[in-house]
Amino acid sequence: MKIAIYPGSFDPITNGHLDIIKRASKMCDELIVSVIYNPNKTPLFTLEERKILVEEAVKDYPNVSVNSFSGLLMDYAKENKATAIIKGLRAISDFEYELQMALMNQKLSPDIETLFLMTSSEYSFLSSSIVKEVAMFGGCIEELVPEHVRKAVIGKFQD
Amino acid sequence: MKIAIYPGSFDPITNGHLDIIKRASKMCDELIVSVIYNPNKTPLFTLEERKILVEEAVKDYPNVSVNSFSGLLMDYAKENKATAIIKGLRAISDFEYELQMALMNQKLSPDIETLFLMTSSEYSFLSSSIVKEVAMFGGCIEELVPEHVRKAVIGKFQD
Amino acid sequence: MKIAIYPGSFDPITNGHLDIIKRASKMCDELIVSVIYNPNKTPLFTLEERKILVEEAVKDYPNVSVNSFSGLLMDYAKENKATAIIKGLRAISDFEYELQMALMNQKLSPDIETLFLMTSSEYSFLSSSIVKEVAMFGGCIEELVPEHVRKAVIGKFQD
Amino acid sequence: MKIAIYPGSFDPITNGHLDIIKRASKMCDELIVSVIYNPNKTPLFTLEERKILVEEAVKDYPNVSVNSFSGLLMDYAKENKATAIIKGLRAISDFEYELQMALMNQKLSPDIETLFLMTSSEYSFLSSSIVKEVAMFGGCIEELVPEHVRKAVIGKFQD
Amino acid sequence: MKIAIYPGSFDPITNGHLDIIKRASKMCDELIVSVIYNPNKTPLFTLEERKILVEEAVKDYPNVSVNSFSGLLMDYAKENKATAIIKGLRAISDFEYELQMALMNQKLSPDIETLFLMTSSEYSFLSSSIVKEVAMFGGCIEELVPEHVRKAVIGKFQD
Amino acid sequence: MKIAIYPGSFDPITNGHLDIIKRASKMCDELIVSVIYNPNKTPLFTLEERKILVEEAVKDYPNVSVNSFSGLLMDYAKENKATAIIKGLRAISDFEYELQMALMNQKLSPDIETLFLMTSSEYSFLSSSIVKEVAMFGGCIEELVPEHVRKAVIGKFQD
Repeated sequence: MKIAIYPGSFDPITNGHLDIIKRASKMCDELIVSVIYNPNKTPLFTLEERKILVEEAVKDYPNVSVNSFSGLLMDYAKENKATAIIKGLRAISDFEYELQMALMNQKLSPDIETLFLMTSSEYSFLSSSIVKEVAMFGGCIEELVPEHVRKAVIGKFQD
Repeated sequence: MKIAIYPGSFDPITNGHLDIIKRASKMCDELIVSVIYNPNKTPLFTLEERKILVEEAVKDYPNVSVNSFSGLLMDYAKENKATAIIKGLRAISDFEYELQMALMNQKLSPDIETLFLMTSSEYSFLSSSIVKEVAMFGGCIEELVPEHVRKAVIGKFQD
Repeated sequence: MKIAIYPGSFDPITNGHLDIIKRASKMCDELIVSVIYNPNKTPLFTLEERKILVEEAVKDYPNVSVNSFSGLLMDYAKENKATAIIKGLRAISDFEYELQMALMNQKLSPDIETLFLMTSSEYSFLSSSIVKEVAMFGGCIEELVPEHVRKAVIGKFQD
Repeated sequence: MKIAIYPGSFDPITNGHLDIIKRASKMCDELIVSVIYNPNKTPLFTLEERKILVEEAVKDYPNVSVNSFSGLLMDYAKENKATAIIKGLRAISDFEYELQMALMNQKLSPDIETLFLMTSSEYSFLSSSIVKEVAMFGGCIEELVPEHVRKAVIGKFQD
Repeated sequence: MKIAIYPGSFDPITNGHLDIIKRASKMCDELIVSVIYNPNKTPLFTLEERKILVEEAVKDYPNVSVNSFSGLLMDYAKENKATAIIKGLRAISDFEYELQMALMNQKLSPDIETLFLMTSSEYSFLSSSIVKEVAMFGGCIEELVPEHVRKAVIGKFQD
Repeated sequence: MKIAIYPGSFDPITNGHLDIIKRASKMCDELIVSVIYNPNKTPLFTLEERKILVEEAVKDYPNVSVNSFSGLLMDYAKENKATAIIKGLRAISDFEYELQMALMNQKLSPDIETLFLMTSSEYSFLSSSIVKEVAMFGGCIEELVPEHVRKAVIGKFQD
């Protein structure tokens, strides 16, 4: 596996995402963490902010780079000569949506494979949404996200 | 990903298994298809027969070898210097069991990763059990298994 | 829909089965309730006993007949000129297995359709197994099965 | 089964919907494909456009007609003297929602039955949403929708 | 179990909620039904209206009080000296979300336990959303909500 | 909540069970851990051995006692004047079975409530079966069961 892509909104990146990145980076020569720009959504962090938070979080992994994209994931993967998409599976609801997307992407590009990793049990309840919900009401998010992300999230809610 | 293991009962190997093998073999330098010997089960085909049926089915994939094992998968993986286990996901019931096994195996050997591929939609209903059930009652299994497996299955039920 | 088949083990028939039979019988000209003979299972009631219990339970439905079969459901359906198989869905675990069987049967006989009815909420927890488990320990199964079935079940456990 | 209704948003109709229509039309004397008008949603195609796309797609089925409705499905069914509602089941998430609706509708109108067909495996990943998402980014939707729908979808995104 | 909290939107309270309240109130000395104020949602009933509808519905349970809150549930629970959160489980989709929330809340406050009750089968299809959907189109909601709630819902849709 | 029962096979008791016992014991005056005797199963440990392993594991909880039973859980609960049954939920497959049993038990004894606790995320993959499977092949079960249970399990497999 030469080049793999780990796509996501990362609004913001959590320790659960980092667990997947760490494990996936061992499986391939180069891992591109790709922040999705979705014009129909209004994230807490801008695309640029999300990219910077991911970059800081993965700076110690030499074969991990950070990028962003909009449009069709399969087109983006081809442009980057990736042969695999990495996805984390946490729960049944993830599973169904990801199965649908994987089958659709297989139809669009049979040469690009989607590989799933199970989220480690300690992060099974963790999501960007839940981090934002807890932080919004002043709850502690210390073990849920890296320290620089924690500061950024708190900064957002103090605005 | 240097060496990966695709474990299973393969009683017998189906076109769904072959689809996973074909796709997984592109992801790694070497793929070992490992037939599980489970003393508590009474399979239709003996361990030796199952191995031979798999070998015939994968003979055109140069980086795929066939082996068998009993005992703890993680021990077997370490002995074979594998860094990844490959699993096919078909349905929710697969998902739950495989999630449990993947988390347990992660605890036993954090360095060996379990990677999941979604079964292609055309094989989503296919399993070794359903092949045997259909064949037992004289139903046609032509598009479900390779030709040499079809003959072997029919041979078993004519005994 | 001319002729439809409602297959099952019916070991024994429950009020949940009867609810499906009543509703399905309105959808077709003729409904055949087909008791499955499975040589690998050891039911509480013999095939003959199960048939008799079903016959008594459906005697007031003029377009419902009772039969038994072993072998491939699709072959049996063709012999009986049925164009549809009726199945009751209760829970997710039913759903996955039934989806697999329906897709397999569609492959074997594209002309015979599998139609699913949702079990009424009052019977959502009911199964032949749970009836037998409750009765075995002397629990009350009065609202779970027809009266003649209740007597037959109790008779079995007094032996 | 005299008259059955197949309700949906059909925004736009896909090959998966057509598969259900084709199979359901064999089960009843008359099948009404009913396009739902939901004032709270902003579909890609107007109600009128959606109806026209469905009509073109089903024109070769003599016992299939196309209609639209808003309000309570059960009231609409009674007005049309329908005795059955047809639904396609694709995945667990469908299943749960449809189970809830079927039980609610059974409470409102015990005489109208909801019948479920499993989506064929080749369309298991297909939905109107995924068609629109792929098309929006210029992906190929050729095998996913009828040709006239493909043109209409592309026309929408060129606006 | 001294003090327990049953949180929810209650927009409006249904017979399914009341079933949980009745059963939970027997398990603890004091049960606080807590109406959630969520600034990001636009409910049919205002917070004040929802509280009044709940109060009327639970007036015959001497150890049940009604309150409202916004913010972090765990903070609210501590302020009220509650040792348990009560939740009703209806379906798989409930289960996954509730599992995630329960694990997150356990991390935030290990001393406050989340206890789940299964919704009675006769209310398994019932939700505030479905009540509003049925009522909006003039359907009968008599057995789904208490009489005073039925009147309030109808009043809303006549506006 | 005066008296509650936590029933199970406990073949053997795991750290996941102990987590539930610890949390449930805070919710009630008295918690009875009840080892099920099922004549149709052949457990690794005898009923007496299982009871002794549980007793040793819970000896530090003053309000927890250990007992065994066969027959109908609801009858056993009544004899012990229990008002609640405690169950741990780990996964969807647990959920469906437990939902069915809870609804059946509610029908048999409306006064006895079944309360569910979610298994802590660190034990989400843990079960008695997986402990036995790992131990059988010489794997390490140190963090999965209490020390005295680990010794007993190893002793069984050395026989």
